[in-house]
Amino acid sequence: MPILPDPPDGVAIRPDLLRAWTAALVGSVGTPDDIAADVAEILLAADRRGIPSHGTARLPNYLALVEAGVMDPAARPVAEVERAALVRYDARNGWGHHASRVAVDRAIELAATAGSALVVIRNSNHYGIAGWYALRAAQAGMIGMSLTNSSPLVAPTRARQPLLGTNPIAIAAPAGRFGTFCLDMATSTIPRGRIEVAARRGDPLLEGWAIDAQGRPARTPEAALEGALMPLGGGEATAGYKGYGLALAVDLLTGVLAGATSGPAIVGLFSTASPSDLGQAFWVVDPAVLDGSAGPFEARLEALCETLVAAPTAPDAKGRVLIPGEPEAEAERLTERRGVVLDGRHRAALVELGAAAGLPFPAVGPVEPATGPGL
Amino acid sequence: MPILPDPPDGVAIRPDLLRAWTAALVGSVGTPDDIAADVAEILLAADRRGIPSHGTARLPNYLALVEAGVMDPAARPVAEVERAALVRYDARNGWGHHASRVAVDRAIELAATAGSALVVIRNSNHYGIAGWYALRAAQAGMIGMSLTNSSPLVAPTRARQPLLGTNPIAIAAPAGRFGTFCLDMATSTIPRGRIEVAARRGDPLLEGWAIDAQGRPARTPEAALEGALMPLGGGEATAGYKGYGLALAVDLLTGVLAGATSGPAIVGLFSTASPSDLGQAFWVVDPAVLDGSAGPFEARLEALCETLVAAPTAPDAKGRVLIPGEPEAEAERLTERRGVVLDGRHRAALVELGAAAGLPFPAVGPVEPATGPGL
Repeated sequence: MPILPDPPDGVAIRPDLLRAWTAALVGSVGTPDDIAADVAEILLAADRRGIPSHGTARLPNYLALVEAGVMDPAARPVAEVERAALVRYDARNGWGHHASRVAVDRAIELAATAGSALVVIRNSNHYGIAGWYALRAAQAGMIGMSLTNSSPLVAPTRARQPLLGTNPIAIAAPAGRFGTFCLDMATSTIPRGRIEVAARRGDPLLEGWAIDAQGRPARTPEAALEGALMPLGGGEATAGYKGYGLALAVDLLTGVLAGATSGPAIVGLFSTASPSDLGQAFWVVDPAVLDGSAGPFEARLEALCETLVAAPTAPDAKGRVLIPGEPEAEAERLTERRGVVLDGRHRAALVELGAAAGLPFPAVGPVEPATGPGL
Repeated sequence: MPILPDPPDGVAIRPDLLRAWTAALVGSVGTPDDIAADVAEILLAADRRGIPSHGTARLPNYLALVEAGVMDPAARPVAEVERAALVRYDARNGWGHHASRVAVDRAIELAATAGSALVVIRNSNHYGIAGWYALRAAQAGMIGMSLTNSSPLVAPTRARQPLLGTNPIAIAAPAGRFGTFCLDMATSTIPRGRIEVAARRGDPLLEGWAIDAQGRPARTPEAALEGALMPLGGGEATAGYKGYGLALAVDLLTGVLAGATSGPAIVGLFSTASPSDLGQAFWVVDPAVLDGSAGPFEARLEALCETLVAAPTAPDAKGRVLIPGEPEAEAERLTERRGVVLDGRHRAALVELGAAAGLPFPAVGPVEPATGPGL
């Protein structure tokens, strides 16, 4: 939920220009146009929703995978098993974003008939923000769930080494005046990027965030970066074994179910040592099958959300109760008004990629202050 | 995961005797034999797995609902909508255990053909431990997920009142030599019963467990019992909004999807004021549809678990890394050897119910010490 403050060295760029440039850049390494459009759309969604760690800032990493021959930019997913409510694709080591867009669209199609459907993928790559695929189902009036396993960064409860990914869970559904309910969460307490931010700012770490290389609570960002993230809940006394259990359940439903790699066997994040062979899973449920139309479910969810946001707040609350997805939707509205904000390092990396590819990076401007009521 | 130590005033009873007596008692209030057998089986599963808060200790509460005319002991669930992978039942305000057993069996049946299936229930009641229904799918070689909404006990992040239930998530799957993977977790940091235990023992509360009636961190059990539980993750800085989001997602997939009551509109736990109208959801996936047989998935899950339990441990670890469900399976093995352990209050309540129904409570014996390597 937390949205980052604007970087001091930030610049703004129109999202349509950044999307078109991203698609062209991705195309320049051998990606067919339709696949490049999916990649650009999903990377831009992260930038627009205030989650820059999963957006165009990762383009250097993705292109390095292609250049190293570790990811095939032209591969198309192939359905290997198809039933009324269960499909498995082999992504053939192509772009995870494209294979996952194909997979969630197939789940939406099947759910409209069967009522619900699960589509899993093996032999895939990093797919960006988990939430995009769940939102895709919500835009069709359905409930969507999106899961992926990922490179080891999290220590199971009692362990002192990273053995599981931050294995996210995203769930979305249409919610009336609240737009779209969208829970999009790593199953660790914090993402690794939060530690990198703390390192840059000199912030101390909170209990429950990370352990050091010896398995003790990490007190400094440097110690945490040599250790591991802790699962949601933190230590054993505060039920961190639940976050560990959720991370393992995500791996069970993605890598293990689809027959991809899992757990500590997954290569390091954006490693060019070998293909990632990630597993993803997309589950879609169509409430209209139960209610006769899409409206009643959405009205019930909106009514529940109404009671939550009207609740009396705690003394230290930063504002009213939020519905999952509201901060990201607020970031999207802000982006519509003033563009995508890139920090200095992010922009420099894209300028460099553009220069190398003969695709000059588009014009940027100053960042308008973020005004408005906020959340 | 934590298993409670033996109570000082404990007695032991053979599980088969307790099951038969429970079925007879449930039958004595007008429950047909097959429904009573489901209720007894599922309540005993909680007692056997070391989760006494959800087992026969709740019989006085269930019988009070029947006697008050708030729950119909003879009602049978009726399927209202049926598709290849989505079914909704109306439980007609009968026993939640029975309706849920019927529902998960239907999901297992459908998943064997469609590959996956979701079955939801409205107009239901408390269903005991969430894990039993997920285990039912695992016993069929499949992946099972079981969800229920429940009476408001948890404060959403920023709120100071309980507005959501502890809304559990249970996920199970066969795991080779590890028996059955079974994550069965409330989406709050701790269950309410943990606070009652702290009150009896005079234990202090940990940060992240509960808030008081003003929304501040609760420091004493008394303050917590007047306030609310905190979602998994605790406060906002330690990502408690993720636990809140999960609790809300469970309500979305149960009460909201099935068209049952949800959130703060649910009556208090075992209140006789009006029917509960709870919602439940059971999702089953058949890995054999993808692999051709049940074996390969189970072998992959076992291999992943092997790498986790072999991990080097942190200095404060109580033992090796555990697989979700191992402590409960250990409790079951102990129960097989020495019987179900009842504390003095639990036994007295059952003796009283038996006397009133003309069904004398079976013989009990002393509790043998729990020996063995443990976990």
